[in-house]
Amino acid sequence: MGRIVMKFGGTSVADLARIRHAAAFARREADAGNSVAVVVSAMAGETNRLVDLAASAGPPDAALDVRNVEADAVVATGEQVTSAMLALTLQNLGYRARSWQGWQVGLKTDAAHGRARIAGIDGDALGEAVDNGEIAIVAGFQGVSDAGRVTTLGRGGSDTTAVALAAALKAERCDIYTDVDGVYTTDPRITKQARRNDRLSYEEMLEMASLGAKVLQTRSVELAMAHRVNLRVLSSFVAPDADNPGTVICDEEETMEQRIVSAITVSRDEARISLLAVPDEPGRAARIFTILSDHDVNVDMIIQSPARTAGANISFTLPESDLDRAEAAIAAAKGDIGYDRVEPDRDVVKVSVIGVGMRSHTGVASTMFRTLADRQINIHNISTSEIKISVLIDAEYAELAVRALHQAYGLDKAAADAASETGARP
Amino acid sequence: MGRIVMKFGGTSVADLARIRHAAAFARREADAGNSVAVVVSAMAGETNRLVDLAASAGPPDAALDVRNVEADAVVATGEQVTSAMLALTLQNLGYRARSWQGWQVGLKTDAAHGRARIAGIDGDALGEAVDNGEIAIVAGFQGVSDAGRVTTLGRGGSDTTAVALAAALKAERCDIYTDVDGVYTTDPRITKQARRNDRLSYEEMLEMASLGAKVLQTRSVELAMAHRVNLRVLSSFVAPDADNPGTVICDEEETMEQRIVSAITVSRDEARISLLAVPDEPGRAARIFTILSDHDVNVDMIIQSPARTAGANISFTLPESDLDRAEAAIAAAKGDIGYDRVEPDRDVVKVSVIGVGMRSHTGVASTMFRTLADRQINIHNISTSEIKISVLIDAEYAELAVRALHQAYGLDKAAADAASETGARP
Repeated sequence: MGRIVMKFGGTSVADLARIRHAAAFARREADAGNSVAVVVSAMAGETNRLVDLAASAGPPDAALDVRNVEADAVVATGEQVTSAMLALTLQNLGYRARSWQGWQVGLKTDAAHGRARIAGIDGDALGEAVDNGEIAIVAGFQGVSDAGRVTTLGRGGSDTTAVALAAALKAERCDIYTDVDGVYTTDPRITKQARRNDRLSYEEMLEMASLGAKVLQTRSVELAMAHRVNLRVLSSFVAPDADNPGTVICDEEETMEQRIVSAITVSRDEARISLLAVPDEPGRAARIFTILSDHDVNVDMIIQSPARTAGANISFTLPESDLDRAEAAIAAAKGDIGYDRVEPDRDVVKVSVIGVGMRSHTGVASTMFRTLADRQINIHNISTSEIKISVLIDAEYAELAVRALHQAYGLDKAAADAASETGARP
Repeated sequence: MGRIVMKFGGTSVADLARIRHAAAFARREADAGNSVAVVVSAMAGETNRLVDLAASAGPPDAALDVRNVEADAVVATGEQVTSAMLALTLQNLGYRARSWQGWQVGLKTDAAHGRARIAGIDGDALGEAVDNGEIAIVAGFQGVSDAGRVTTLGRGGSDTTAVALAAALKAERCDIYTDVDGVYTTDPRITKQARRNDRLSYEEMLEMASLGAKVLQTRSVELAMAHRVNLRVLSSFVAPDADNPGTVICDEEETMEQRIVSAITVSRDEARISLLAVPDEPGRAARIFTILSDHDVNVDMIIQSPARTAGANISFTLPESDLDRAEAAIAAAKGDIGYDRVEPDRDVVKVSVIGVGMRSHTGVASTMFRTLADRQINIHNISTSEIKISVLIDAEYAELAVRALHQAYGLDKAAADAASETGARP
C-alpha cells in the first residue's frame, strides 16, 4: 500500500453526478489501503466562463502582467470550487477528506501568470495528511508565486499539478482519469482501427503531446520523464470496478511491446510560408529567421532549394496562429531579405509517425514515403527526430494519409499480432 | 488626505456595469489623494448560488464542522472573483490596483466556519500598499483560520470586514456603499414620509440593526462602536459626483440633531408563546426558561400575570424560526412545568422606537402607548432599554402603528423643523 495520485479533468467532474463518480474511484483506492491525493480541474466549461469574465473587465490584448495576475485570481476559483465539492462528496460518504488550494499545498511557481511553471512543492503537510488516512483533494492548475499571489499554469495545467505532486510525494502511481480509456495509436475519429496502446515510453508520449495528441499536456510528460513518475491514462467513464488498464507511460525499458511505430498523429495548427527567389548569399537565411524570432514566431520545418530562375526558395512551417504576424514581419523586411515573392499556405497539416523502435530499425521513413506516394500524396516538408518522422502535406489528404500509414505500420492489427510483425520493411 | 475604506455590497457589484460604477467611486477617492482600500461582496446572487452548490454535495443538515470548512472554500470564491474583477477594471482605467484575499490580507478568524469572528488583521502590508498609491481591493466576508483554512463570516460579513479593516488601518472613514442612500427614520415602503437620518449614534444603529433594519449587519456596528470607526452608509446608485451625504454613524456627542426619537423599526421574525395557568410557585419560571435555553431558543420579552382561575400566565416572545422547536420542548416538559394550556401565536410583530434622546427626555413611552391606544392597537408585551422601547402587537396593525408613531414623534417633518420640536410630550 503506497501513495497514489489521481487526477480528474473537467469532463470527469462536469457536474454533481460525475463528481460522485470520481469519488467512487477515489474511495476504491482508499479502501485498498492507499494514501490518496486527488487533483481536480474546474468543472467542464467553468474555466472558459471565468476566462471570458476576466477578459470582459478590459481589452484582452492589454496583456500587462498586472492584468494577468488578477485574471489568475478569477480563473483559479474554478478548481477551488471543484476541490471543495469533491471533499464534501467524500465526507458525505463517510470518508475523511479535505480540499487543498495551491497556496495551502505550498505549490510554488514562478510569476509568469497564466502560464506559470512549477518551482517546487512543499508536500510534507499533505503527505502527512494522506498517510494519516485523510483523502487530499488538490485544486489543480494553480499555485502561488513568491509574492504570495495566485498563479495558474496554463491550459492542461492540472496534469502538470498531478505529476509534480506525484513526484513530490514519491507516489507509486499517477493516474490521469479522463474521458478516453487510454492513449490511442491514432485519433479514433479518423479510423475505427485505432487501438489503445498498453504502454508508451515517456519519449513517445512527449512527441505525441507535441504533435497533436491532446490527451496529456506536454509539460506534464516532461516532468514525469524527469522524475520517472509512473504515469497512467485511463477512463473515468466506466464503472469503478470495471477492467480499466488504460495506457501506462513509463521508461522505454518497461515498454515490452516490440512494435516499431506506436502512433500516427495529425497536427492541424500548421501553416507554411515560402519565400521565392531569395538571393543565394551567405547569411540570408540567418537574417530571415532572426527577424521571425524577434517577432516570436515559432518556426518548425525549414527547406531551402534552388529557385527556378535565380537564388533560392526558402520555405518553413509555423503554427497557423503565428501566420499573420510572420507575414507582416517578412513584408516589412522585404528590402533587407531581398526575396521576389511570398506564398503563404494555411491548408496544410503535419502527419507524424512516432515510435521508439525507430532507434534500432531502419526503413520506417521509406515505408512512410512509399505509402504516401502510392496514394499520390505530395510531401512539402519533412522533419525527423530519433523516434519520429513528420511530413507536411495538404490538409485535404490528412485522413487518407493517417489511415494508410496506420495500416502500413501494422497498427490496424491486434496488439498480439503486431508484436510479431513490424509493418516497417527495409 | 488619509486612509479611506469603501465597501460595495452585492447589488453594487452585480454586473460589469455596476463594477465599473463602483470603480468610478474608488477613482474619485484616489484622485483626491486618499489611500484607498475597497471591500467587495460577491456579485448579487453568487453567494446563494454557491451555498446551494455546496449544499447539493450532501444533506444540508449534516452540519458537521468539516463540511462547513469545505462549504466555506466554495462560497468564498464569490468575493475572490469580484475583488479581481474590480482590480482589473481599475487597471483598465489606468490605476494601480490589486486584489487581496482574506489569507493575503492576514485577516485571521476563529474556526467557526460559516459564521467566523475576526480575531485580528495584520494590515501592515496592505497599509503600505495603499499609502504607496495602489488601490487595494479586498475580498469581503472571508478570512483564514489558524489552521490555514478559508473561513466565512456569515451573512452581511463584508460590512464587518470593512469596519475591521478600517480599524486596523486607522482609516479616516469607512463608507458603506449600498442600494439605499442612507439609514431612514423607518422603512420607506411603509410610509413615504420616511426620511434619511443625517447622523445616528452607534448605539442607535446597533438597536436598529438588532430590531429589523437590514442596512448594516449588527456585528459590523458593534465593531465600529468598539473601535470608534467613522462609519457612513451611502448610495452607489447615484453619479459619483452627485450630492451623496448618506447617514453618518458616529459617537453620540457628534450627533448634533436634537430629535429624541431617530427611527421606528418593525421586526417581523417574531412569535409569542403563552403558557396558561402555570402553578404560582417559586422556580417555575426559571424551569421554563432553562428548558428553552437548553434547546437554543432565543427568548426576548417575558410577561407574567395572574391567571383568571389559579396560578400565573407566562408569555414570552421568540424568533418565529425558533417556534416549532420551543413548542416541542415545552410539550415534552409539560409534567415538569405543570401548565394547563399552551397558546402559540405567529401573527405578531415587534415595533420599536429608538433614539438616544430618550436618555434625557421623559414621555417617550407614554406618547407611544397613547398613540397606539388612539388607533385601538392592543399591546401584548413591552421591553425597553435606555434608548428604545419595543412593543409586540398583532401583525395586521404593523403598518398602521409605524405610520402613526412616525408622525407622533415628529419624524414626518423636515429635519430642520424636527430639531426644534420633539414630538414627544410628557
